[in-house]
Amino acid sequence: MSDPRPPRTDLVDILLHPRSIAVLGASDNPRKLSGRPVDYLKRFGYAGRILPVNSRRATVQGLPAHPTLDAIDGDIDLAMVMLDAAHAADGVRACGRRGIRAAIVAAAGYAETGEQGALLQRELKAAAEESGVRVLGPNCLGLISVHDRAVPTFTSALDEDIELRPGPVAFVSQSGAFGSFIFSEARQYGIGLAHYVNTGNEVDISVSELLGAFAATDESTVLLAYLEGVSDGPGLLDAARAAHAADKPVIAVKVGRSAAGARAAQSHTASLAGEDRVFDGAARQFGLTRVSGVEPMLDAAQLFATGRRTRGRRLTTLSLSGGAGVLMADEAATRGITVDPWDDEWQRRMADVIPPFGSARNPVDLTAALVSEPDMLRRALDVALQHPGTDMIGVLLGNADGDVDELTDAIAKAHGATEQPLVVVWTGGSGRARQRLRELGVPCYSDPGRAAAALGHLADFSLRPPLPTGERPEGTDPRAARAIVAEARAQGRTRLDEYDSARLIAAYGLHSAPARTARDPEEAVRAAADLEGPFAVKLLSADVSHKSDMGGVRLGLRTPDDVREAARSVLGAAGRAGVADARLLVQRMAGGDRTELILGVQRDAAFGPVVVAGFGGVLVDVLDDSQVAVAPVDHAGAERMLRSLRAAAVLDGVRGAPPRDVDAAADAIVRLSWLATDLADDLLELDVNPLLCGAAGDGAIAVDCLALLSAPFSTPSEQEAR
Amino acid sequence: MSDPRPPRTDLVDILLHPRSIAVLGASDNPRKLSGRPVDYLKRFGYAGRILPVNSRRATVQGLPAHPTLDAIDGDIDLAMVMLDAAHAADGVRACGRRGIRAAIVAAAGYAETGEQGALLQRELKAAAEESGVRVLGPNCLGLISVHDRAVPTFTSALDEDIELRPGPVAFVSQSGAFGSFIFSEARQYGIGLAHYVNTGNEVDISVSELLGAFAATDESTVLLAYLEGVSDGPGLLDAARAAHAADKPVIAVKVGRSAAGARAAQSHTASLAGEDRVFDGAARQFGLTRVSGVEPMLDAAQLFATGRRTRGRRLTTLSLSGGAGVLMADEAATRGITVDPWDDEWQRRMADVIPPFGSARNPVDLTAALVSEPDMLRRALDVALQHPGTDMIGVLLGNADGDVDELTDAIAKAHGATEQPLVVVWTGGSGRARQRLRELGVPCYSDPGRAAAALGHLADFSLRPPLPTGERPEGTDPRAARAIVAEARAQGRTRLDEYDSARLIAAYGLHSAPARTARDPEEAVRAAADLEGPFAVKLLSADVSHKSDMGGVRLGLRTPDDVREAARSVLGAAGRAGVADARLLVQRMAGGDRTELILGVQRDAAFGPVVVAGFGGVLVDVLDDSQVAVAPVDHAGAERMLRSLRAAAVLDGVRGAPPRDVDAAADAIVRLSWLATDLADDLLELDVNPLLCGAAGDGAIAVDCLALLSAPFSTPSEQEAR
Repeated sequence: MSDPRPPRTDLVDILLHPRSIAVLGASDNPRKLSGRPVDYLKRFGYAGRILPVNSRRATVQGLPAHPTLDAIDGDIDLAMVMLDAAHAADGVRACGRRGIRAAIVAAAGYAETGEQGALLQRELKAAAEESGVRVLGPNCLGLISVHDRAVPTFTSALDEDIELRPGPVAFVSQSGAFGSFIFSEARQYGIGLAHYVNTGNEVDISVSELLGAFAATDESTVLLAYLEGVSDGPGLLDAARAAHAADKPVIAVKVGRSAAGARAAQSHTASLAGEDRVFDGAARQFGLTRVSGVEPMLDAAQLFATGRRTRGRRLTTLSLSGGAGVLMADEAATRGITVDPWDDEWQRRMADVIPPFGSARNPVDLTAALVSEPDMLRRALDVALQHPGTDMIGVLLGNADGDVDELTDAIAKAHGATEQPLVVVWTGGSGRARQRLRELGVPCYSDPGRAAAALGHLADFSLRPPLPTGERPEGTDPRAARAIVAEARAQGRTRLDEYDSARLIAAYGLHSAPARTARDPEEAVRAAADLEGPFAVKLLSADVSHKSDMGGVRLGLRTPDDVREAARSVLGAAGRAGVADARLLVQRMAGGDRTELILGVQRDAAFGPVVVAGFGGVLVDVLDDSQVAVAPVDHAGAERMLRSLRAAAVLDGVRGAPPRDVDAAADAIVRLSWLATDLADDLLELDVNPLLCGAAGDGAIAVDCLALLSAPFSTPSEQEAR
Repeated sequence: MSDPRPPRTDLVDILLHPRSIAVLGASDNPRKLSGRPVDYLKRFGYAGRILPVNSRRATVQGLPAHPTLDAIDGDIDLAMVMLDAAHAADGVRACGRRGIRAAIVAAAGYAETGEQGALLQRELKAAAEESGVRVLGPNCLGLISVHDRAVPTFTSALDEDIELRPGPVAFVSQSGAFGSFIFSEARQYGIGLAHYVNTGNEVDISVSELLGAFAATDESTVLLAYLEGVSDGPGLLDAARAAHAADKPVIAVKVGRSAAGARAAQSHTASLAGEDRVFDGAARQFGLTRVSGVEPMLDAAQLFATGRRTRGRRLTTLSLSGGAGVLMADEAATRGITVDPWDDEWQRRMADVIPPFGSARNPVDLTAALVSEPDMLRRALDVALQHPGTDMIGVLLGNADGDVDELTDAIAKAHGATEQPLVVVWTGGSGRARQRLRELGVPCYSDPGRAAAALGHLADFSLRPPLPTGERPEGTDPRAARAIVAEARAQGRTRLDEYDSARLIAAYGLHSAPARTARDPEEAVRAAADLEGPFAVKLLSADVSHKSDMGGVRLGLRTPDDVREAARSVLGAAGRAGVADARLLVQRMAGGDRTELILGVQRDAAFGPVVVAGFGGVLVDVLDDSQVAVAPVDHAGAERMLRSLRAAAVLDGVRGAPPRDVDAAADAIVRLSWLATDLADDLLELDVNPLLCGAAGDGAIAVDCLALLSAPFSTPSEQEAR
């Protein structure tokens, strides 16, 4: 299927570098929402053609008004549609007829308001698709293209005469008003912006697509995103890949972390969230910088805007106040940043340039003498910049900002003389010093904790793992797996029993404990004779999911008599429970010292198939200690999942146990993730519980497995044909 | 022993309300550190007598200079000693001779710099004690008493002509410079301060004592503390008790959370930290509000300064931007604050006053129409104030702050009309609206997350548990416990074996599994005959602490033959390991479905004896899931410790198990905490590992216990005599 949509750089061109902008429904009153776009375009000095469309007036805000789009001469690049929800779709169709390639639909009153609005939204979507016009919105405030001063928007952020400060940061937000608050707040941080785009209900152009487009152009090097939900998970991952490859950080706030927040998000921009922890896992997998709110986002943006990266996590701090150094060391530790004492030789070199009451250990304390001796700071910075064990530098100052040009200049000079990240924390005072430092391009914070968080994000991004390779392991057999699914489909089943589930994962190379099926106790005894003991005897049924709760599992059986008695007992329990298809599974029990893991496959509304890994027992039941990743996962990614579990130290062996076979467990995750990928349309859910992971070299064995298929909305053969 | 120190209100009087202040070593140059106190006292309008002491000049900064203290007529209330470390002790003695009751010692160069400085510090301490002069410092910037405009300090915070805004907040800081930064930063938050006192190296007056003094006076209702270490744990707890009883929050930053931070703190104000998690536990026990840094402290202070409390944790938000409401709901959830949808009736009442595109569910979205219709906000606030399910209100706005007096007035009016906490989040814009709201007494934030954190702290404090009762449980026998200790001391032992350790805790009413000692296998068999099975046979030795690692533990024994064989094997293992005092413990194994807990007693450098409680197994080994409290603990406190464990859900029963006997486990903690308190001088460490906690009603049984005594620095009889 050919995609009529323009390539990404075109999207940037038509949205952000229009040579002419028509405003449909433009009001003459610059204070009205529908009057603001023309007012802003004029006031902020847009150099292209401003084309108000208004059939009832000859002029709009001093410009000639056009009765219709057709009455306008020449090309029109972009339309801002200020019509209400009932008329916007017509407006978009009119744009299409006029050859306009993109339109911004401002009106609210769509899917966020209920069924009636959802209908209008479907109509708008149809208009966009049929006309070929790319649509931003609806329920959207528009956009700000700073370099071009193209501001087709009615955001309150431009309400007053502010200076549009250009810079390397692009910001995309699903929320309009809140996005505008953030745009405005960014100015207080001295952050220069290239673009701000609000996507609203995303009937067409999404945050994901815009991030991908920005990753592919040179206009911005830091991408900010405010998300209420992810309508297009794979699209977001494409964008993340592009940004990762282009070494551009994507700093994302995604709300809906809590149940209350998710509920609120849905009634705000009608976003369907997917599971929050899946977003979290995807962010870690693809190197997105997820932050919790506005301030952490802007704090990080300020630092990333310098374009610098760090080669390690070792911070040296130089302070006016020992106390600030102590707090910074604490806050750095929470972000995985280390503040280690320097060795003796380098302490001597530092001691040579600081006062006798100071400390040369790191945190380096220059004492209050620093304020009156800017040259001392300069010398101390010189030493720190030469110190081979320093990856990042923090200068911690405060108050006394009346007459500090010499101090700020010394810092700016040191900042300019190095490629290392260098931040200033300036607490107290009037704010003048912070402002000056920011003007000089030096990231500056009022609170050590916030600076530490920003440095942590920079380090995480600088040292991020490579993108998932997408390499398929050997020994996966999609054909065999599909045959097992087809067999179940043919029997009208959506639940595979333990035996078939084990066959399914075996087709992808996962090891299960050797097992045989049996119909009666004597067959069970014969089956056991084929295996080594000890044995487990389990109820096999497609109808029972919690067999151990009903007496359907017997463990630790050693003799034929044990097996016979257990088989009778299990079948008896099944009979009492009215299980129609009861059979038996005789399984060899995995021996040795093994750790219980739980692996799973789930289907996420936003990202599709995902794999989950965690420890078994109380850790997963009570602490929900699990990690999620979007399928497929590569080996390194699977190992990172395991190592990111809170109880990961278990993998190194606890209480004298040898390290676990992480390699085997990671391999099982990878294989399961490929099964999930290949059978995405059929597999609703799969649990391996437990996967018994032995000591290094002893492998990992699935002991119980249960697969659920999706409802049979289509026949297996139809699915094969896709 | 009689304490010559003045009662607390006196301490406030002599430090913060002096009628005259002498400045020893006052310089004529107001820019020099030693010139600043006189300059500040003059500039900020101190109404008392300013008395420069300088033997080399006739005047100091236009005031008559006195050659010595003795040359001054009339009473002197307070002295600011601006002499160097070598001369400050003499200065304090001179103050004593002159009848001055308190002195501030500014000089640095004491214990924070090493051994030579520590010597000077001991000399200064002796001078304070011998002269009876209360000393603040050394290594101290002084203090600011805002109401009196008494500013004996050389802090850079007063460097420029700032307005001293009086208010209900008192701030005490161990760190001088950083404390001054915070003092200055507080002004940016519109926080009115009563006092700022820097305690430095705390040779005499400590943060703890000052907090206690402030709790006892009416001048402040919100207490802020910046701590680098706790020199006097019990003193801090006394202050916390007083503040708790007076309903005054103590909002504390304590640094040294990380290893790097603790190391840095020690070299800064020579603070000995005690364990950070003990501070954390003590803060929870005594209702201290611990925050992580400067901004959280000031954010909370702003809200607490209104004097309001909340009756519950239910927040209603009214927003201009749906997005802000979503983020706020997320952030609130992380603080245990709920944003629940209103019921239908109240949604209808809210819907009546908001625009049709808004949402009346909570988060309530008033949409951008709010800006142009302040009256709508007023009506919505009216509804929210009447709503019975609302405990706290958040108004979420942004940008557009040029012409908002009507809006801010409406908010201030609603704020004034209720006793409920009401906060505003105003993101973006110029900051004018935030400033105006703060002037009107309405707490205002730029970030939803920070507002949510402040509300969380307010709710935690408002709904804080009562102070520990200090009530001793029945059935503790200190005499019997001391006899067991004396027995060990008499034998020159500091380690009690399992049998004696069990006797020790039995003296405080803790239950252990029934057990007998035996010297040989046949005695073991006879011992088992006295007990019910199954049995454990364990090595009993005062020299062995990890008996299971050397084959010294055998479990699950049922027959006399089992016991005999096990006893032989254990004694054999002991013989091979060269254990000289090997005996046997024959123990009845606890039956039934039981959960492993670990209880312990430790001694903290700052707070003395503490109890620790956690789950056994992987949870404590790998996740360090434990809670600490200062001994003694009351029953409710012990239960809170258990319920605060991350895996606390285990106590409710997992995987179909019935709830655990939390009552019995809490009782064991209480009893252990009293043992720790009574034997504080003797007991270095005690571990009950595990305490097996049964289902509700089945009790909790100690199965292994090991007590260590402190080194015999004094004989038991001397300790009895104390």
